[in-house]
Amino acid sequence: MRIDILTLFPEMCESVLCESIIGRARENGLVEISCTNIRDYTKDKHKRVDDAPYGGGMGMLMQTQPIFDCYTDICERAGRKVHLIYMSPQGKVLNQEKVKELSKYENIAILCGHYEGVDERLIEEIVDEEISIGDYVLTGGELPALILADSISRMLPGVLSNDEAFTKESHYEGLLEYPQYTRPYEWHGRQVPDILLSGHHANIERFRREESLKRTYMRRPDILSKAQLSKADIEYLRKLKEKIKSEKEDKSE
Amino acid sequence: MRIDILTLFPEMCESVLCESIIGRARENGLVEISCTNIRDYTKDKHKRVDDAPYGGGMGMLMQTQPIFDCYTDICERAGRKVHLIYMSPQGKVLNQEKVKELSKYENIAILCGHYEGVDERLIEEIVDEEISIGDYVLTGGELPALILADSISRMLPGVLSNDEAFTKESHYEGLLEYPQYTRPYEWHGRQVPDILLSGHHANIERFRREESLKRTYMRRPDILSKAQLSKADIEYLRKLKEKIKSEKEDKSE
Repeated sequence: MRIDILTLFPEMCESVLCESIIGRARENGLVEISCTNIRDYTKDKHKRVDDAPYGGGMGMLMQTQPIFDCYTDICERAGRKVHLIYMSPQGKVLNQEKVKELSKYENIAILCGHYEGVDERLIEEIVDEEISIGDYVLTGGELPALILADSISRMLPGVLSNDEAFTKESHYEGLLEYPQYTRPYEWHGRQVPDILLSGHHANIERFRREESLKRTYMRRPDILSKAQLSKADIEYLRKLKEKIKSEKEDKSE
Repeated sequence: MRIDILTLFPEMCESVLCESIIGRARENGLVEISCTNIRDYTKDKHKRVDDAPYGGGMGMLMQTQPIFDCYTDICERAGRKVHLIYMSPQGKVLNQEKVKELSKYENIAILCGHYEGVDERLIEEIVDEEISIGDYVLTGGELPALILADSISRMLPGVLSNDEAFTKESHYEGLLEYPQYTRPYEWHGRQVPDILLSGHHANIERFRREESLKRTYMRRPDILSKAQLSKADIEYLRKLKEKIKSEKEDKSE
């Protein structure tokens, strides 16, 4: 897969993308990620890429011409129309399903906005979808673009060291992850739950599943309703709710 | 305000934090951000910071000792207990309200997990809150930590070039932002809406407000119910819904 990032800060993006798991994946040719500087495409003699908004208001907007020409060049090099995503607070909020969907493309391009955003006509003309990474405001689209590139890349075959690694993680099976422990066995008076040392794989599996269910029920009941639950899961949750209810009643007595 | 980031990739974090608006804010002393390498605190002779999880399973976990000692050092240098946030998919999902709340601290620390996460006992012992930036899986906690540092920093006085700049942005007043336009007036056959050239400020303000309302209603009805709406806003939305309804009926006839 190839990901093209259109940005005013290619060096910053590059310094993140050359590190750790994604850096290794790029070196091994498992994903190709390229950062292109939008400013290289401006026809303005002062190399400007922004201008004041019509109608007044704070800040500056990114102009259509440099972005359009940059994107056209990327499509020409790819020999096709490349799916273009604009990172924007106005977009659909990213989730793991969308990540999975995007990981199936052969080629995507991600546009990072900066300043007050981009001219709306550019979005209408070339952007295929707008994506937001969450309901908070940032100084630019670079970090969101890197988040998207990271989340997509780790879904590609071979990128994680073990193909199974991503199936047990939070938001993949729709539950939060269970608590995990490593050495030492005792730390600051806190011990690892004994069941994890039992060597009884089925019991460990059940313990972890129940911890996941409990955690998701306590912290994110909104995602629990969408998760795939077994009969045993449903029975466990029923008992958990009863237990919490009776504890509450004990307290109020 | 001071933000301490505890990470295994301090150079990567630093290369993002020295750029653009946040880089300028740090240079001007408006926010102090420091990245500390957790690995510098390990007592392991091979400089290891991770180990296999108890109970088996994929991947490695970050151990308690290096993180605990790193955090203790940060608190000692600060001369106080520093509010510690762990970036984790198990956390509460970040929103602009939480950003605003955190921007009032004098000092926070952000722990970036890596590998399969950190030993649960460390979270119980020193973490004050767990925050998730959204329902998707990433290769590490560095990008989420940078997202949090960026969103908080831009709320601090003087960081944005104009104090009003952040009051009109998406998720601040609870509505999505209106479309914006800059020169040229005509581009690829698309013109800037004439009202923005009228010079009539009240009409422009009303046009933008209505565009924000329409966009939020169409794309994010979930956040519209939490927004502060005027009588005129409610009346506009009522008419909009009627218009959409009658257009649908026209189509189905």
